[in-house]
Amino acid sequence: MDDALKETLIATAHRAADAARPLTLASFRQADLATEDKGQGAFDPVTQADRDAETAIRAVLATARPDDAILGEELADSGGSSGLIWVIDPIDGTRGYISGTPTWGTLISVAEAEGPIFGLIDQPYIGERFAGGFGIARLDGPHGARALRCRTTATLAEATILTTFPEVGTSVEGAAFHALAQRCRLTRYGMDCYSYALLALGQVDLVVEAGLNAYDIQAPICVIEAAGGIVTDWRGGPAHQGGRVLAAANAQIHAAALGVLRDCADG
Amino acid sequence: MDDALKETLIATAHRAADAARPLTLASFRQADLATEDKGQGAFDPVTQADRDAETAIRAVLATARPDDAILGEELADSGGSSGLIWVIDPIDGTRGYISGTPTWGTLISVAEAEGPIFGLIDQPYIGERFAGGFGIARLDGPHGARALRCRTTATLAEATILTTFPEVGTSVEGAAFHALAQRCRLTRYGMDCYSYALLALGQVDLVVEAGLNAYDIQAPICVIEAAGGIVTDWRGGPAHQGGRVLAAANAQIHAAALGVLRDCADG
Repeated sequence: MDDALKETLIATAHRAADAARPLTLASFRQADLATEDKGQGAFDPVTQADRDAETAIRAVLATARPDDAILGEELADSGGSSGLIWVIDPIDGTRGYISGTPTWGTLISVAEAEGPIFGLIDQPYIGERFAGGFGIARLDGPHGARALRCRTTATLAEATILTTFPEVGTSVEGAAFHALAQRCRLTRYGMDCYSYALLALGQVDLVVEAGLNAYDIQAPICVIEAAGGIVTDWRGGPAHQGGRVLAAANAQIHAAALGVLRDCADG
Repeated sequence: MDDALKETLIATAHRAADAARPLTLASFRQADLATEDKGQGAFDPVTQADRDAETAIRAVLATARPDDAILGEELADSGGSSGLIWVIDPIDGTRGYISGTPTWGTLISVAEAEGPIFGLIDQPYIGERFAGGFGIARLDGPHGARALRCRTTATLAEATILTTFPEVGTSVEGAAFHALAQRCRLTRYGMDCYSYALLALGQVDLVVEAGLNAYDIQAPICVIEAAGGIVTDWRGGPAHQGGRVLAAANAQIHAAALGVLRDCADG
């Protein structure tokens, strides 16, 4: 891929994230967001914000990259002829979003057939954007810019592990997670996609989730790999289609975690 | 208490929080964050930033309010003759702090013998400050100022409940929490003192914790009560000395939660 195309993809991703920000922020922390199980046709402000933001992202992509395909959480897939596919989740972490926690994010990434090549994790309320791919591994935030680099933690006994829910998927998956967490120094919950940003930022060592979709993980994969980390499924295979995900700060801690998860997931 | 004294206390609290900010931020998200084990077998990290920030807060208080007493997390209590006591925690949520999550806070409050009367929850990284007491119930943050007001959620079935750790204190306390959480619509973890700010902001309905110290809860009590919420222990008594804490958005949801917690805690 030539540099001009890379520059175009980078700029397009940022413009798409910029376009989504006012739409996700407009509903964040507004009254009466936290309603669920709505009847058909009932107004759902979270879903509406989600769709509005995805529509804005798609409008940017349609103009800048009309021949690329799009896979989004909210709207129908759109095909393309370029061989590139944008994978987007306008509000990843809707439970965090409706609880007012600034742990949700807008995930935007672009992939080739082999997997994602550039991605952003954007947290509009804090004003943080984590970018990874094409030689970029960078946070821009309220306290300036910073290079992303995963930690060198080598053993589980020194590791901080994150996941969103203590339940972590099915009961077998939950048992596997807890078997791993038990061997780690510190376990923390509730960070939604912000967990992956913290891994790339060198703040934590492992993020373990299950039941993910492609649009939940492709942007994080770009950001983490750009920072030197590794993202696979629980058997060490590719994770960009979602499912069970193990994100690790480096090869050594990845291998240690994989040893535990692989055993348990088989049980 | 006359208005001039209230104004002085408010201004002093803000100056103290301002003084702490650069010191807590200086170490946040830095590599090799120094931690030490306080003993008692538990993992309880303390950073030099914690002590430096408390020293800075105490310097502000010593100048502005030399006759007030001080109770802080890190340094020895200091006595006073005014009848007022400042209760401070420079970094509440040290586990969040060392994990890079912007869920820790600087807690600063001032109390009379009967309990706290004005308090701040400050989140330096996001740049949010939640203030409550003396007729103030206000967030100042990166997207402007906003009045704090708790929600009107009336039933557990509609409620969002927060706590920091799924374990929630002892096994009896944990069982009580989970009995309550089971009846709620959504349970979220990991927010440290930011949970209390979200309650005052009308984003969640219940925060339940155990094993707290006075300096963990007095500032949150001020902020939540100023926003119309209620904070008690698990039997409905005063919570400002810490221990088991139930913070609720309003009287109705408080009563519903208390019914569950009181039963279970006795079991």
